[in-house]
Amino acid sequence: MNHKTTIETLARLAGGTLRGAGDVVISGVATVTDASPHDVTWVADESYVRRLGECRAGAVVGPLDLPATPMPAILTRDVESSIAAILGHFSVPFWRPAPGVDESAVIDPTAELGEGVAIGPHVVVGPRTRIDAGTALYAGVYVGADVSIGQRCKLWPHVFVADGCKIGNRVLIWPNAVVGRPGFGFLFRDGKHQRIPQMGTVAVEDDVEIGAGTCIDRAKCGVTRIGAGTKIDNQVQVAHNVTTGPGCILISQVGVAGSVRLGTGVILGGQVGVMDNVTVGDGARATAQTGVARSIPPHTTVEGRWGRDRMRVLREEAAMRRLPELLERIKELSRRVQALETAADDRKAR
Amino acid sequence: MNHKTTIETLARLAGGTLRGAGDVVISGVATVTDASPHDVTWVADESYVRRLGECRAGAVVGPLDLPATPMPAILTRDVESSIAAILGHFSVPFWRPAPGVDESAVIDPTAELGEGVAIGPHVVVGPRTRIDAGTALYAGVYVGADVSIGQRCKLWPHVFVADGCKIGNRVLIWPNAVVGRPGFGFLFRDGKHQRIPQMGTVAVEDDVEIGAGTCIDRAKCGVTRIGAGTKIDNQVQVAHNVTTGPGCILISQVGVAGSVRLGTGVILGGQVGVMDNVTVGDGARATAQTGVARSIPPHTTVEGRWGRDRMRVLREEAAMRRLPELLERIKELSRRVQALETAADDRKAR
Amino acid sequence: MNHKTTIETLARLAGGTLRGAGDVVISGVATVTDASPHDVTWVADESYVRRLGECRAGAVVGPLDLPATPMPAILTRDVESSIAAILGHFSVPFWRPAPGVDESAVIDPTAELGEGVAIGPHVVVGPRTRIDAGTALYAGVYVGADVSIGQRCKLWPHVFVADGCKIGNRVLIWPNAVVGRPGFGFLFRDGKHQRIPQMGTVAVEDDVEIGAGTCIDRAKCGVTRIGAGTKIDNQVQVAHNVTTGPGCILISQVGVAGSVRLGTGVILGGQVGVMDNVTVGDGARATAQTGVARSIPPHTTVEGRWGRDRMRVLREEAAMRRLPELLERIKELSRRVQALETAADDRKAR
Repeated sequence: MNHKTTIETLARLAGGTLRGAGDVVISGVATVTDASPHDVTWVADESYVRRLGECRAGAVVGPLDLPATPMPAILTRDVESSIAAILGHFSVPFWRPAPGVDESAVIDPTAELGEGVAIGPHVVVGPRTRIDAGTALYAGVYVGADVSIGQRCKLWPHVFVADGCKIGNRVLIWPNAVVGRPGFGFLFRDGKHQRIPQMGTVAVEDDVEIGAGTCIDRAKCGVTRIGAGTKIDNQVQVAHNVTTGPGCILISQVGVAGSVRLGTGVILGGQVGVMDNVTVGDGARATAQTGVARSIPPHTTVEGRWGRDRMRVLREEAAMRRLPELLERIKELSRRVQALETAADDRKAR
Repeated sequence: MNHKTTIETLARLAGGTLRGAGDVVISGVATVTDASPHDVTWVADESYVRRLGECRAGAVVGPLDLPATPMPAILTRDVESSIAAILGHFSVPFWRPAPGVDESAVIDPTAELGEGVAIGPHVVVGPRTRIDAGTALYAGVYVGADVSIGQRCKLWPHVFVADGCKIGNRVLIWPNAVVGRPGFGFLFRDGKHQRIPQMGTVAVEDDVEIGAGTCIDRAKCGVTRIGAGTKIDNQVQVAHNVTTGPGCILISQVGVAGSVRLGTGVILGGQVGVMDNVTVGDGARATAQTGVARSIPPHTTVEGRWGRDRMRVLREEAAMRRLPELLERIKELSRRVQALETAADDRKAR
Repeated sequence: MNHKTTIETLARLAGGTLRGAGDVVISGVATVTDASPHDVTWVADESYVRRLGECRAGAVVGPLDLPATPMPAILTRDVESSIAAILGHFSVPFWRPAPGVDESAVIDPTAELGEGVAIGPHVVVGPRTRIDAGTALYAGVYVGADVSIGQRCKLWPHVFVADGCKIGNRVLIWPNAVVGRPGFGFLFRDGKHQRIPQMGTVAVEDDVEIGAGTCIDRAKCGVTRIGAGTKIDNQVQVAHNVTTGPGCILISQVGVAGSVRLGTGVILGGQVGVMDNVTVGDGARATAQTGVARSIPPHTTVEGRWGRDRMRVLREEAAMRRLPELLERIKELSRRVQALETAADDRKAR
């Protein structure tokens, strides 16, 4: 974090235009609130622009129409991409195992390791497994038999990949993730839950990310498939025979039950649960904590315990907040109708 | 997965009757949709039977009254059991540590290992711990002091079993599960949360399965007990002093709070939460995402945030969907009552 | 668990007054239901006092006004603290790595270890990391580069601490917890989810506890901060740039999204989800399974899917249970109004 860099250089890195002095030296990135004179900050919307008056940052990244600011500015068409580039510049690469095999690792003699593969301490790799060029297995990773892992992957400490799974290229698997456990399938016979053998595997396609502690179960038969470019957060459960399309996002603590099919670019918010055998259409979304109990058409957003259409849920929730009042109004209406009826009866009686 | 087997042999394995040619050679199992001519598939209900017309499977397992099919069939009283037997036949056993102790393992000299115990690389076993015949500890397992583990168990990589816990026979514990952490109990005194010592343990009975990343906390005093044959999925939390009956099923991401008692054969759906001190009766069920805030009588099914009776919830949910309409009807009724009252007042005034 | 101790000694340990014979020898603690004559039990409220008649305990800890009991009693102002002291007395300390470095550990030569640091088997410690006096790393712990860990911490097996994180004094981290993974932040550009570099770190302050399998993500820039004395249960997710105040309690399976700010002493029940950017005021609480979608004022309790005020939710839920009945009443009211209107029309027509 000691790359001291002038604003001029940062503007070039960020693909932006410099406004103001370019020779200020920056050594980090911080939010508007936290920034010191050695930091560059960023403003993505109006609410932050207003706060720049009290901001101590040495420079700011903002949109092309950014008003005058107290510090030099880097103006850009895409503030988020620009600040991502600058974050990348100041990031220190993580410590990683050196290419080669640590002497404490236990690698089956029939395993094949590609060029530049880095195997950290206490790793275990099983028979006939193939690991391609440039991939790193951090300390304590366990890879079973007959696994294939593509190029330039990173498997962080204590990741478990079971026998027969296939991992594509540039896949990141964070600590303690579990890929390929046999799915949770039982038959209740003779008064006991008996395991259904799970002879399928898991296929993780290119550019997938799998979060810490996340579990992807192997299929009963066939494969559990994680589509290319899908990103999965920490502590997510993906059950046997699930298929996700490419480019899905599964936020932390999502649970996806058996044989669910997620289309392309599906987004599931934190703690969402999807019931078994459900199909979720391309581009559909479920907001945090939703229970998706039924299939969802493409490009819809669902919400709430039953995974209903979001607009409908909002209307119902609004109505529900009026329920106690409504009960009162019905009581009152009853009294008034009663009074009218009594009056009518009186008239008849007269 | 190269056991080529004739349909005739599979029929015998499956306990079924062959219909059609018995000499077709099969090398795998696949769903109706995915099957190739080398696969056997299965149909459990009508909806699948209709799809057999387009199915390419070399053979099909179905019920005794299965209509004529385009491929040879194995007819059986129990399709699910039969296909489970065939899945077992084609399954390749997982790579496992060889009997004996890997030289990288650290085993306390006072630990006792039964016949044929297999200790993988980088395992740690503490003092006075006893591991019975035929049990396998995969790479990186940690077993503390004074633990007992029965016969023919499998503890997968990086499982943690804390001091003093007792594990029965034929128990499966999947990667990264944590058994016996001290329960989460604190006293707030002198402005601080102070840990309550947890001197109890965990008892896991025979034939239990504990999923990947699942945590079973040790008791404050006495034991947290997982009853025989109970099956627990991934990422489940079982807090201190919980007791489960035999034969329970806890689906992924369930959370069971302190001192809960689950009866025999209780089934908790995915992401269910059970509040502390609740008792769940024998054979009761909670559907996915339910919050069980109160005790449940035997053989009932509860659902929804408060863990209410399922039929009642369905009725209430149906009513709730009509809420916006209902508000409109009340407004309209109000107007009509108002009109009637005005008319009545007019009459009186006349 | 063989410390045989007289009741007299226990009374002193518990800060209480002995009533009855002091020479009974006790060797454990158990609940009123489970206690044997060798156990001490405790009663915190009236409901338990009534059950003492059938209790076999050798002694009981109770409040100063405890009625006469069949066994000797230890009377105390604070039953919970007294029993915690007694539990501590009977607890056996966990087996732990001996001071020094196990020969199977891989410690970077530039790492600094304080006095009495205990490094178990198969541990990995990265370059320039500093570990202070009295801290223990159990088997298989992974600590990256440039980390600092304070005095008298315990990191249990397979804990992962990423590069650059700072851990205070007396911090407990339970098995398989993951501290410092880069946060889950992506930009969708050119049809792909692209990782936003996360150059920040995690700061865990003194006396914090982090549960098994819990994940604390590092910040995009700046720090994710866990305030002093905060206690986090198992399987909790804390996303990037979250700040918790001192003394918070996060129960199992809570998920806290990016940039959330929790005040001092906030309590989140099991399976609670907090949406990104929300602020939760000092002393506020959310009950189990609540979705906190909006900021919460200090010292309020929220509940339900939208994190609403608890009293209001209870009122609405009560109303909801009356919904089916309400629909019937509206139908009936409609019929009666209709009848009145028909009668009025008839009158006009006459």
